[in-house]
Amino acid sequence: MSQEMMMEERYQKGIGVVQTLWKGSKGMQASPGDPANAHDLTRLVTEHCFSDSWSRPGLPLKTKSLLTIAILTTLGNPEELKGHIRGALNIGITKEEIVELLIHTLAYTGAPRTVTAFRVAKEVFNDVK
Amino acid sequence: MSQEMMMEERYQKGIGVVQTLWKGSKGMQASPGDPANAHDLTRLVTEHCFSDSWSRPGLPLKTKSLLTIAILTTLGNPEELKGHIRGALNIGITKEEIVELLIHTLAYTGAPRTVTAFRVAKEVFNDVK
Amino acid sequence: MSQEMMMEERYQKGIGVVQTLWKGSKGMQASPGDPANAHDLTRLVTEHCFSDSWSRPGLPLKTKSLLTIAILTTLGNPEELKGHIRGALNIGITKEEIVELLIHTLAYTGAPRTVTAFRVAKEVFNDVK
Amino acid sequence: MSQEMMMEERYQKGIGVVQTLWKGSKGMQASPGDPANAHDLTRLVTEHCFSDSWSRPGLPLKTKSLLTIAILTTLGNPEELKGHIRGALNIGITKEEIVELLIHTLAYTGAPRTVTAFRVAKEVFNDVK
Amino acid sequence: MSQEMMMEERYQKGIGVVQTLWKGSKGMQASPGDPANAHDLTRLVTEHCFSDSWSRPGLPLKTKSLLTIAILTTLGNPEELKGHIRGALNIGITKEEIVELLIHTLAYTGAPRTVTAFRVAKEVFNDVK
Amino acid sequence: MSQEMMMEERYQKGIGVVQTLWKGSKGMQASPGDPANAHDLTRLVTEHCFSDSWSRPGLPLKTKSLLTIAILTTLGNPEELKGHIRGALNIGITKEEIVELLIHTLAYTGAPRTVTAFRVAKEVFNDVK
Repeated sequence: MSQEMMMEERYQKGIGVVQTLWKGSKGMQASPGDPANAHDLTRLVTEHCFSDSWSRPGLPLKTKSLLTIAILTTLGNPEELKGHIRGALNIGITKEEIVELLIHTLAYTGAPRTVTAFRVAKEVFNDVK
Repeated sequence: MSQEMMMEERYQKGIGVVQTLWKGSKGMQASPGDPANAHDLTRLVTEHCFSDSWSRPGLPLKTKSLLTIAILTTLGNPEELKGHIRGALNIGITKEEIVELLIHTLAYTGAPRTVTAFRVAKEVFNDVK
Repeated sequence: MSQEMMMEERYQKGIGVVQTLWKGSKGMQASPGDPANAHDLTRLVTEHCFSDSWSRPGLPLKTKSLLTIAILTTLGNPEELKGHIRGALNIGITKEEIVELLIHTLAYTGAPRTVTAFRVAKEVFNDVK
Repeated sequence: MSQEMMMEERYQKGIGVVQTLWKGSKGMQASPGDPANAHDLTRLVTEHCFSDSWSRPGLPLKTKSLLTIAILTTLGNPEELKGHIRGALNIGITKEEIVELLIHTLAYTGAPRTVTAFRVAKEVFNDVK
Repeated sequence: MSQEMMMEERYQKGIGVVQTLWKGSKGMQASPGDPANAHDLTRLVTEHCFSDSWSRPGLPLKTKSLLTIAILTTLGNPEELKGHIRGALNIGITKEEIVELLIHTLAYTGAPRTVTAFRVAKEVFNDVK
Repeated sequence: MSQEMMMEERYQKGIGVVQTLWKGSKGMQASPGDPANAHDLTRLVTEHCFSDSWSRPGLPLKTKSLLTIAILTTLGNPEELKGHIRGALNIGITKEEIVELLIHTLAYTGAPRTVTAFRVAKEVFNDVK
């Protein structure tokens, strides 16, 4: 097996999780006009997140989804948060569970980040209604 | 007095401050389509912020308003910052005092967060002109 | 039922969770020499965290424990992290699950915070060996 | 007046505030073995904080002290926090006011940072008892 | 030389760097309707960043530009990041180098902040194509 | 070539950089008593940082070292900062350049994080004197 095939295997393992979370998604992709190494960046993002962590069996997928939402709420990244709340609903996490998670971040991460995350969650909830 | 009435009293104490800061506001509210526990989250946000801290007599209201703006500038939450700068002006804090606060965050929180907060402040200043 | 008894009930609900996580603990307490309102602060910390979130039935205790560790890793608070890793082991979360969680924060929170959290985790692991 | 004298005037204005906060302190100083430009860094730290913000008349000294403690609690820098809590007590802010401030950060900055700051505050309170 | 002329000299040194990074820019400016001290804030932002650091000879301009982008990616300030990525391209940093920098922040700052910064970088890359 | 050999190659590429930065170091290692998957975490930390970024040719090693120190100063991780300041000196970055970097973070990351990083830097400077 060539090194390229090996790397491809590692990457595809991550893409498998990406498609479980967001049906039909090919993960983060560089665009035609991007610099040559942009493909390395998007590939590494997919591998670090989805091959190296999400594809491991040690914690249930739903737990990892909730952990990701808690981290993104704490960091305060609305765009990524939106994607992962959508992904959470896709794998069967309920809206109630996401709100419970935000009741938990209220105490630990504080009101401002939690209120921002709730605003993002409501946008996703309205989209999937 | 029933437990429900007690809890209502605690909540109303917070809503009182909310209305001092933003006349006519009912505080954060869940929307009809939100999951059932969203009301618990919005109630707890109001209680943690406004009943448990703002309604206490230990520090003047204006001091708490300035502290809140400093924290939101440091965290970098533009939406919440906008609301609290508006609230600050409503209770008599001057635009000059808000700018002085940002001269202080410049040194401690750094230029990027301060510049973002100044952009938000200018939007509010223009609205109330 | 008096208001004091109601408040006591709310607080005791939180202390119940505290004792599930750390057997024999009375939660955060003010010391004799502390200013008079320090008791209000320690009480509110216990209530916000343990009465208002941990004592709710919407998410399993173990999930909340993992979420707390993920948030503390992202914020980077070693002392609180140490306490909650200890608490996690006390309610049956395994060391392997905590390491899996850190493999997840590695991708989302980055290497520095994760390495710091792993150092803290190892201290706790060695203590309970 | 030479440029050096001008710069000296600016710096001395900052040192004046430093001595109000911490009697006898000369502010941050480079040590004999430090690289040559370390003196520029320590001078700029003093100027950015104390000449450019603290020495301005637009907000009372006590307000600036409370703002600084709120920012340091949010950032989570224990050493700097310790210094500024000591400084706050030196200019007449009471221990009760600092605890009130932490009741406010509990809601906005969250429990972990607030608990860390309270631990630091208690160390200072014990020192000055 | 008067104190005003001295201060003007210090400020102009910063504006020189501003114009190297963004041809034709006058740096951050207060608007006519802003409070009187807004001019002090915008002047201090320019001086802290550009007079006190960028104008110093100790590190190459390109290195400082990359450092600034790394800090803004870690803090997560999209507007300021956009300006500094534009500035980086203006002084000859290549798009490839910016992507390499983001491959580095992926490991240290984590995927969410890096993905946000890459989105901002792509907007700038498309504008200058 | 087997998959194991491929993975080993990837890992060794990272260890090569580790040894350039810290002569004789084998990188982060799990200890005998650690849980079974701790080895996966330490391996992934090494790969994400050193194989996937540091070993790439797109930016000079010294630039990556300065970027890392700027990120760690902004995040505020003293232990990791200490290691990377030591590493920077090992590859020929001067103490003066590190202080210049901190003059830059003073403006962008703010005084508290910069002062903490300077304290860490001084400890390393004293060790290698």
